[in-house]
Amino acid sequence: MIDNFLRLSTLFDFYGALLTKKQQDCLKMHLYEDWSLSEIAAALDISRQAAYDMIHRCTATLEKYESKLQLINKSKKRQTSLNSILTDVNTLQSAISNKRLHIIEDKLRELLNS
Amino acid sequence: MIDNFLRLSTLFDFYGALLTKKQQDCLKMHLYEDWSLSEIAAALDISRQAAYDMIHRCTATLEKYESKLQLINKSKKRQTSLNSILTDVNTLQSAISNKRLHIIEDKLRELLNS
Repeated sequence: MIDNFLRLSTLFDFYGALLTKKQQDCLKMHLYEDWSLSEIAAALDISRQAAYDMIHRCTATLEKYESKLQLINKSKKRQTSLNSILTDVNTLQSAISNKRLHIIEDKLRELLNS
Repeated sequence: MIDNFLRLSTLFDFYGALLTKKQQDCLKMHLYEDWSLSEIAAALDISRQAAYDMIHRCTATLEKYESKLQLINKSKKRQTSLNSILTDVNTLQSAISNKRLHIIEDKLRELLNS
């Protein structure tokens, strides 16, 4: 359940902009406001069942985008590579003290958080 | 004209997977095979005008994806950051000879080309 929630949250981060405004609102209420289906339904002026369907259809749509573009997969691989470089830089820092190494570290951390 | 061509090629690299098979085929013939509109039309069994329209509609669709997801913009920024780190590493290499610096350089170049 938590895994599904985290997955949907990640999918929404990467592809949410491709959904309609109403779909985005629905998922924001579900993911970030922790609203119940009844509360979401009331806010969007739709039935509880329609709110449930919308969340599930959006999940399928977002998974379809990921299956085609692989942005989440690519991002994970990039993060792994950057972390590996950061580890190398930190290892080097333990042997060599150089201001430029700190600059490199800072830039890597900035990239990791972007 | 060349700018338009390059832009469409970049858009297709990033978002082509979101187009239908027929649209992808059309753009591949246009971008990579350098086929004329008449040749594309014949291959897809559509009119020359329909081939022209398809290319222009695809361009608009791909631009819409970029306006929403900004993948090209983000990639450019990432490349700029990685190149900046690579320059720092190369500067450091001119002062310090260390095997790990070469490993870091290789990993950065791999990331830049991924």
